Amino acid sequence: RYGYFGTDKLQVVKLLFCNVSGCLTDGQVYLPATGEEMVSVNGRDASGVRMLKKEEVEVIFLSSSDDPISEALADKLSKKMGCEIRQGVQNKQAEVKKIMDTRHLMWKDVAYLGSDEPDVDCLNLSGVSGVPQDAPVVALNAAKYICHSPAGRGALREFAEYILLLKKKAKSKMDQDRIGRDNF
Amino acid sequence: RYGYFGTDKLQVVKLLFCNVSGCLTDGQVYLPATGEEMVSVNGRDASGVRMLKKEEVEVIFLSSSDDPISEALADKLSKKMGCEIRQGVQNKQAEVKKIMDTRHLMWKDVAYLGSDEPDVDCLNLSGVSGVPQDAPVVALNAAKYICHSPAGRGALREFAEYILLLKKKAKSKMDQDRIGRDNF
Amino acid sequence: RYGYFGTDKLQVVKLLFCNVSGCLTDGQVYLPATGEEMVSVNGRDASGVRMLKKEEVEVIFLSSSDDPISEALADKLSKKMGCEIRQGVQNKQAEVKKIMDTRHLMWKDVAYLGSDEPDVDCLNLSGVSGVPQDAPVVALNAAKYICHSPAGRGALREFAEYILLLKKKAKSKMDQDRIGRDNF
Amino acid sequence: RYGYFGTDKLQVVKLLFCNVSGCLTDGQVYLPATGEEMVSVNGRDASGVRMLKKEEVEVIFLSSSDDPISEALADKLSKKMGCEIRQGVQNKQAEVKKIMDTRHLMWKDVAYLGSDEPDVDCLNLSGVSGVPQDAPVVALNAAKYICHSPAGRGALREFAEYILLLKKKAKSKMDQDRIGRDNF
Repeated sequence: RYGYFGTDKLQVVKLLFCNVSGCLTDGQVYLPATGEEMVSVNGRDASGVRMLKKEEVEVIFLSSSDDPISEALADKLSKKMGCEIRQGVQNKQAEVKKIMDTRHLMWKDVAYLGSDEPDVDCLNLSGVSGVPQDAPVVALNAAKYICHSPAGRGALREFAEYILLLKKKAKSKMDQDRIGRDNF
Repeated sequence: RYGYFGTDKLQVVKLLFCNVSGCLTDGQVYLPATGEEMVSVNGRDASGVRMLKKEEVEVIFLSSSDDPISEALADKLSKKMGCEIRQGVQNKQAEVKKIMDTRHLMWKDVAYLGSDEPDVDCLNLSGVSGVPQDAPVVALNAAKYICHSPAGRGALREFAEYILLLKKKAKSKMDQDRIGRDNF
Repeated sequence: RYGYFGTDKLQVVKLLFCNVSGCLTDGQVYLPATGEEMVSVNGRDASGVRMLKKEEVEVIFLSSSDDPISEALADKLSKKMGCEIRQGVQNKQAEVKKIMDTRHLMWKDVAYLGSDEPDVDCLNLSGVSGVPQDAPVVALNAAKYICHSPAGRGALREFAEYILLLKKKAKSKMDQDRIGRDNF
Repeated sequence: RYGYFGTDKLQVVKLLFCNVSGCLTDGQVYLPATGEEMVSVNGRDASGVRMLKKEEVEVIFLSSSDDPISEALADKLSKKMGCEIRQGVQNKQAEVKKIMDTRHLMWKDVAYLGSDEPDVDCLNLSGVSGVPQDAPVVALNAAKYICHSPAGRGALREFAEYILLLKKKAKSKMDQDRIGRDNF
């Protein structure tokens, strides 16, 4: 039971929100006794982010207050991916709405890749929404697209390709409509 | 062959014991030549622990004397998960009984997530007991619930959801019984 | 849908190019907040490289400018695998062509193990080309051989065995042809 | 195609040799640019080693000169597993024979868990021999027992249980034979 359910709405996504833990990463945190915590990211996902930015889709990562990472680690991830990270987000819907407002965007312009219960509202509201293959049931049920790839190992890349495909189809549809309109 | 075998007993679990190696973690220990050992934990499992605490189920982690982790690493895990860790436990049944007695609990009030042979007695005695999908046969045979998720990657989260489901059903049954009693 | 598609051309490969991220490694980069990034390599893949060198197939690793690793980490990987690494490659086809020219080799003498979109040209041009089992669709479609093993966990070893098998068959064919020619 | 092929010979194994890379570990080596390399081991495998030692089966790890680990890391692994590690072994058959001779053992008394081409001779000669599920074909073909578990994640534990099962069966057979002999 993967992929999109129902009719694809042809969305032109302008902004992708992506959870850090369980979307960008596989959720694993590596703990030494006294040293620094580590997380891992995948080159394929980084390349998905580059693809989106090339097509003028902004990407913003969200890190929950429930699942905190250090300021320094967030900075490192932000630099590695070339994207902003919002740290310590308590209410994801409120944070996303605030960012949307500064950019004059509506929910239909937004894509959301989430991983768990705190993402459910955003998964329901966003024009395009997805979860990694290994997300908990509560998130799987709320998402419009379920990735074939697991979190931190290609899910973000796959979702990026899906967003770009919808955008291409929507543009091609708009061009056809304009040609139709111009000709008659 | 996953899930629960037999009739679900509607338990109201008050306390969950969970093994560290092979339950909270996937059992992997990362070894540098001279530096500190590392283990990894998953954000989904941490969120399972938060769900239990919110519903007033206490969570205590057990670390075996066979499979020791350093005092400092145990402290870090304890802080990360927001739970007590009992270190260097030699006899798990005795340790669990001691903790149960201080809280005036019986075996039926206790849930146990175990991973190997030293957990078998507790798996048999506890009201609700589980093992990760990738546990050795001896533990699989003793557990009442076998998780679909492997150790350190969602098994604890899944077991937490199972515990909360049983609790909700049990409470709803108790409410019905009380209504029945009050009315006649 | 694994393995080779179409008729095996009996190639005598003299030089293998292999991508670092997503071929030699599984694409994961481990990030501590301030410390050094880590990647991981597998002993089986290292043994595949030794097998190739023993049969006089040179191995050169390519690291993309998109997916940079530090100079020091490239040096370490190079020493670990006993092979040259070309760092920060922007145009893979141009880089490969340059190296081929210094060795008077043609595309049919070259094998290429790639992992993503920037490898597509080289996958199309090389005499023998492959991708790990978990590569993105764009790379899977361009490769002549799809490994059963995932990136960083045996794909390079498997591709090395495939190269040596083709070489052995080609040599045996050439010997037969020469015997035929000498006898009549 | 897992498990044992042919009739189980009832062996009383006295000594188990186990490869480090690809048997005790999953073969992954974690590389920081300048810091120490890391490998990982699993708690289940460590518990398999404890089970063997309790039943008086000695365990010796072999680390190949092809796939070297640092002296310090070998010491750490040795301490962690409570077993001797032979470092930088060039010819595994010769090394194993030398150790067998000092203990007056024959090949039938020896079990061998191997992972690749250099282990083939020992896999063929040993009374009981095995490989992890994800071993290369050359090793899979030489082993008498193919583990269901992959390297570094339970293969050693599974092989230990198999050894102890054969030993138990053999002892029970010997007891029966002796009873038979004593009675008539």
